[in-house]
Amino acid sequence: MRFSFLLWLLLSTHLSFSQQKITGFFSANAARQLDMEKQLDAMISESNQDQWLKFLSSGPHHIGSAKGKANADYMAALFRQWGYETELAEYHVLFPTPKFRSLELLGNKPYKAKLEEPAMAEDKTSGIKNEQLPTYNAYSADGDVTAELVFVNRGIPADYDELERMGVSVKGKIVLAKYGGSWRGIKPKVAAEHGAIGCIIYSDPMDDGYVAGDVYPKGPYRPGQGVQRGSVMDMPVYPGDPTTPGYGSKADAKRLSRENIITIMKIPVLPISYEDALPLLQSLQGPVVPEGWRGGLPLTYHTGPSAAKVRLHLEFNWDIKPLYNVIAKMRGTDFPDQWVIRGNHHDGWNMGAADPLSGMVAEMEEARVIGALAQKGFRPRRTLVFCAWDGEEPALLGSTEWVEDHAEELQQKTVAYLNSDGNSRGFLGIGGSHALENFFNEVAADVKDPQTGVSVLERKYAKTLATADRSAKAKILGSRYMKISALGAGSDYSPFFQHLGIPSANIGFGGEGSGGEYHSVYDSYDHFTRFKDPGFKYGTALAKTAGRSMLRLANADVLPFDYNILTNTISDYLAELKQVLEQLRSDAEMENKLINDKVYQLAADPVLGFAFPKIKPVVPFLDFSSVENAMALLKKNTASLKMALSGAAVLDASKLASLNGMLYKAEQKLLYEKGLPRRPWYKHQIYAPGFYTGYGVKTLPGIREGIEESNWKEAQDRIVILANTLMEFDATIKAALAIFN
Amino acid sequence: MRFSFLLWLLLSTHLSFSQQKITGFFSANAARQLDMEKQLDAMISESNQDQWLKFLSSGPHHIGSAKGKANADYMAALFRQWGYETELAEYHVLFPTPKFRSLELLGNKPYKAKLEEPAMAEDKTSGIKNEQLPTYNAYSADGDVTAELVFVNRGIPADYDELERMGVSVKGKIVLAKYGGSWRGIKPKVAAEHGAIGCIIYSDPMDDGYVAGDVYPKGPYRPGQGVQRGSVMDMPVYPGDPTTPGYGSKADAKRLSRENIITIMKIPVLPISYEDALPLLQSLQGPVVPEGWRGGLPLTYHTGPSAAKVRLHLEFNWDIKPLYNVIAKMRGTDFPDQWVIRGNHHDGWNMGAADPLSGMVAEMEEARVIGALAQKGFRPRRTLVFCAWDGEEPALLGSTEWVEDHAEELQQKTVAYLNSDGNSRGFLGIGGSHALENFFNEVAADVKDPQTGVSVLERKYAKTLATADRSAKAKILGSRYMKISALGAGSDYSPFFQHLGIPSANIGFGGEGSGGEYHSVYDSYDHFTRFKDPGFKYGTALAKTAGRSMLRLANADVLPFDYNILTNTISDYLAELKQVLEQLRSDAEMENKLINDKVYQLAADPVLGFAFPKIKPVVPFLDFSSVENAMALLKKNTASLKMALSGAAVLDASKLASLNGMLYKAEQKLLYEKGLPRRPWYKHQIYAPGFYTGYGVKTLPGIREGIEESNWKEAQDRIVILANTLMEFDATIKAALAIFN
Repeated sequence: MRFSFLLWLLLSTHLSFSQQKITGFFSANAARQLDMEKQLDAMISESNQDQWLKFLSSGPHHIGSAKGKANADYMAALFRQWGYETELAEYHVLFPTPKFRSLELLGNKPYKAKLEEPAMAEDKTSGIKNEQLPTYNAYSADGDVTAELVFVNRGIPADYDELERMGVSVKGKIVLAKYGGSWRGIKPKVAAEHGAIGCIIYSDPMDDGYVAGDVYPKGPYRPGQGVQRGSVMDMPVYPGDPTTPGYGSKADAKRLSRENIITIMKIPVLPISYEDALPLLQSLQGPVVPEGWRGGLPLTYHTGPSAAKVRLHLEFNWDIKPLYNVIAKMRGTDFPDQWVIRGNHHDGWNMGAADPLSGMVAEMEEARVIGALAQKGFRPRRTLVFCAWDGEEPALLGSTEWVEDHAEELQQKTVAYLNSDGNSRGFLGIGGSHALENFFNEVAADVKDPQTGVSVLERKYAKTLATADRSAKAKILGSRYMKISALGAGSDYSPFFQHLGIPSANIGFGGEGSGGEYHSVYDSYDHFTRFKDPGFKYGTALAKTAGRSMLRLANADVLPFDYNILTNTISDYLAELKQVLEQLRSDAEMENKLINDKVYQLAADPVLGFAFPKIKPVVPFLDFSSVENAMALLKKNTASLKMALSGAAVLDASKLASLNGMLYKAEQKLLYEKGLPRRPWYKHQIYAPGFYTGYGVKTLPGIREGIEESNWKEAQDRIVILANTLMEFDATIKAALAIFN
Repeated sequence: MRFSFLLWLLLSTHLSFSQQKITGFFSANAARQLDMEKQLDAMISESNQDQWLKFLSSGPHHIGSAKGKANADYMAALFRQWGYETELAEYHVLFPTPKFRSLELLGNKPYKAKLEEPAMAEDKTSGIKNEQLPTYNAYSADGDVTAELVFVNRGIPADYDELERMGVSVKGKIVLAKYGGSWRGIKPKVAAEHGAIGCIIYSDPMDDGYVAGDVYPKGPYRPGQGVQRGSVMDMPVYPGDPTTPGYGSKADAKRLSRENIITIMKIPVLPISYEDALPLLQSLQGPVVPEGWRGGLPLTYHTGPSAAKVRLHLEFNWDIKPLYNVIAKMRGTDFPDQWVIRGNHHDGWNMGAADPLSGMVAEMEEARVIGALAQKGFRPRRTLVFCAWDGEEPALLGSTEWVEDHAEELQQKTVAYLNSDGNSRGFLGIGGSHALENFFNEVAADVKDPQTGVSVLERKYAKTLATADRSAKAKILGSRYMKISALGAGSDYSPFFQHLGIPSANIGFGGEGSGGEYHSVYDSYDHFTRFKDPGFKYGTALAKTAGRSMLRLANADVLPFDYNILTNTISDYLAELKQVLEQLRSDAEMENKLINDKVYQLAADPVLGFAFPKIKPVVPFLDFSSVENAMALLKKNTASLKMALSGAAVLDASKLASLNGMLYKAEQKLLYEKGLPRRPWYKHQIYAPGFYTGYGVKTLPGIREGIEESNWKEAQDRIVILANTLMEFDATIKAALAIFN
């Protein structure tokens, strides 16, 4: 008995975990799964994606537009046709659109900004004016302000430190910032914090215009009058409808009045083209900018202020608009109450071919093929939910409202959420929960790169290796492993991941489809099919990657979460954060020595008359012991769990069910109910968008931002909160372990 | 007896070396010296420099011009007036000037380059056309070539590797290169090596035009039509008159015929402005350039080739012209046959206010004050020689011919050569023989910075510290020491230093007088006095620094050469070079692993169709034992000598004379008579201009360039040559030590 059990165990682990190479599948199921995946690969079609992209991008389809609703209906009909129970989930949200926009340089060289993207013969949809959203930043304040202009580089906090050193103040001024370096909403927020009364953001040609490459229509980069639209809502505080924070914005929902909303910008903000920026930059006086601030326009960049004043006048329609999420479900055969959710948004600023439709059509193709497989008898064991979100561009409106509306059910049922948001030629990029890192490595090893014929994992590894520096190369060489990135903000995973603690990932290909069409009217079918993914080869690669991921999560015997990898990743973040603190301390000590020795005074050009750094406060030592103790336990227990899981085939069905339930809900234990300081909506204690970076992730955000902002008390408090959170997480790990005893 | 001798020794070293703090001066002489230096400081006048600069820069004064001769006469008269035995040393040299210049873009968007710097009302001398040298590169070939254009970035060897990767050939093409990244003469040399038939060099606004700062006349930077003239003679092979390599070009000298001269460029070369470059760059097709190649013009930079052809037609007058060095001597009272030489050139491309006259007038002011001090009884103990070189710009013509003409006498008599070549506001910069590093630290500690009131040493230290990276800061902090740089090429020290082995240094202030006037017609009195050194404060600082250096070298009891510092510096170079070799080896190994794994193929964008790196040959281990044994001896013996020198006051006059003779001639032992591979004129085995960098120094050049060019046999041979050279040097050190026994 004993002997035969051991033999069985050996054989079973060998077959199911080693030979077949899908973590979480017992041998019989693995074979069926691999067969299914082979069929998936064979059935995915480029021409469907082409046809759908052409239709969906044939007119402006932003939230509240007739075309947006028509697209939702079109997709819903297709999902139904493919066998999905499909509904349009409707919410009602505040979505401002421009009523009046004007930007003028006054003085003796006056200039009136064009604020208009011209039609081009080479781009067939660029001339469609019906429902075209003009160039603007959503959730700017209304305002009519006149003041001198100051150039603030990227407009992030460090830039204002530099301006202070140069003796340039933005108080009562209008600032001009380059796009890039942070999420755009950070720029007016920080400008207002420094007393600015208006904010203009432009796309410098150095970033995505002629400096980067040939401009549209000759090449893919931003033409002279191309403008990046985009939201400036303070989403690092909370995303979604600003009138209904934390709950679904049904038609009859109770709403905050506009003056009580903290996420709407306090000052007027307008995005402009580099052609419109040129005369503004030419009007600036004051010091020449530091070298790192220079852009690509043919002039000497100065900080300002300008001699002449600038008038910025903006008024918006503050309307409540309906939005339509498409929610398509395929009920699982074995575990109908365990959901694997896939999403991409369907609204675009205008034609939105690359952003978001290129990802949307790949998701649709996955859904179509999975529907067809179900018809052939390969119905998934867990329920699949395919979503097409509306209103992502303004503020993740559709996803956030739906998630808030169904929060409890989603935390109960959702195994994982897989997001995409556009796609182009190049290399696989995955960010998300590190519990899924091993899972995605296995998936990526089984998808072929369309250009080279090797796996997309192999190609990603080659790219990482080829572009690594000397010391990193030595570390990576031979690993053939893809480290996934941590997620900040920027797409619809935020409510699932950072609000509800649902294991999530963002998936996409890119790196060889660079251009300057982003959020302009030129993000079109013509542009996409010429430059970003001709022939939809990488749309197909995305459909294979995400489709395979959906099917594996749906059919796995043991859910493939590796909490030991997550734990080790958290441990790496902690070690790095402690190093940041040590570095801050030694930098402050060195800096103070230099200041005391008058080194900066003596090194400076006295003609410039700039100010010198001030003595830095001492950086204290923090007590990390609580979190270190928690980490030590977690490392031990997650390692034990990992070991135990390799023998999960011996568990009976009810134990397996308990185990799976614990596995997919474990990451929810990393939430802290009161959330992050001053932004309770963000509950995940490992990953958050930076309060002053936006897109950019802050890992261990409570502690990290405390340290970065020299808020030592808060940093210390947050260490203890993290330690307690990790202990809760550890309790679930231990409970999962107990199943094996 | 024994006791009193020790007491005397203690007192004497204490007084002369510690309290008075001038290395090499016994106590009584130190006091006199410090008194003299105080008077030097008090007597130096800004207004003299202003007056002389205004006169000397009032018209074009290049070699062969009437104004150049008039300037030489004017300076000679002044030197005589100040009490110097003065002569004009005349040589006859090949100096080409333009007969015909034309550059056209052909095709359907034709453009004819202006090749002309317009007069400006704000610059009073810019309109002087009489004897103005047009924009050209001296020692270009004659030629009339028509071909497609290829952009080659800086035009250095690494750029051609990159072009090859992109599949772009320059064979039979005309290349367009940006100024910078190497000495300009490297660009046509390397272009011709790769089969190009013409070379155009332009000043990109990123380097010294509007990207760097406001352009002239609003600011100091290069205006749209400003052009950098300059020589392209292959000076890393040998400088000076190309018709008389290695000997003085007297009027009746035997000369090489033009076709036998290897240092004249093989292809036509022309410098142009960025306004003239713009249509050429716009005509280019082919791949978009790598990011590091981009310039500051408002376009997408492509490599080419161009669709349309370019015609470059240049003809020169190949005339032998007379040049006039001013040589002014003040005979030393005690050691008339020991010379301390000071020099700066007096020829400019046109008005040459900054380059070279700002340094020249400082030197003149030193000479005037030293003359006045001599009248007051402070005549120097050694002979001082003040030189004003002609013809530096084309090829160090005046200094090289004079040095070659007097080589034996100079090696016999010259204690040191101190060069300057222009000056501006900012920080002290010194490069040269490291045997003088401690000497210059002491001098710099005693000169006040005019803007801050601290010593120029303290300010230099502050600048170095403030701009150092984190790890360098920790190393430098508290040292208050100035590491002097190694000298490559670029001014008149080359013949003294690298050809004759005379301890030399180049001295100047800079860093706060940046601009784009270099070698243009706008390097004028107006430009200089507005932007580079208003009020001649730093001209005065230079006169105090160099004047003090001259007087200390002239009056020292023991010449202040510290060969232990030189030895340790050579040892550092050797250690660094071994590290370079190890790095090359490990890089090649890593690179080959990546190539074998097809990493570059998989990481590349296949659409671009670029080539991939090829397998690198194995980097062998070299035998450094000979040079390491020599270094070990040298370190021991130079340390002993340093110790012994602190007791030199006990030596009798004849021993002291022998010791000083050995000290100033020791560095000549670092020459190797057959010189460097393929360039025998460069005999110094520690310092040389790089064969493929020009300005840029190569330390331990024989070994280093052997390694850089994978010429392992040559590198190994050069290790042995260096070891033998160091042993010869060590013999002199030992002989100096023997004087104390």
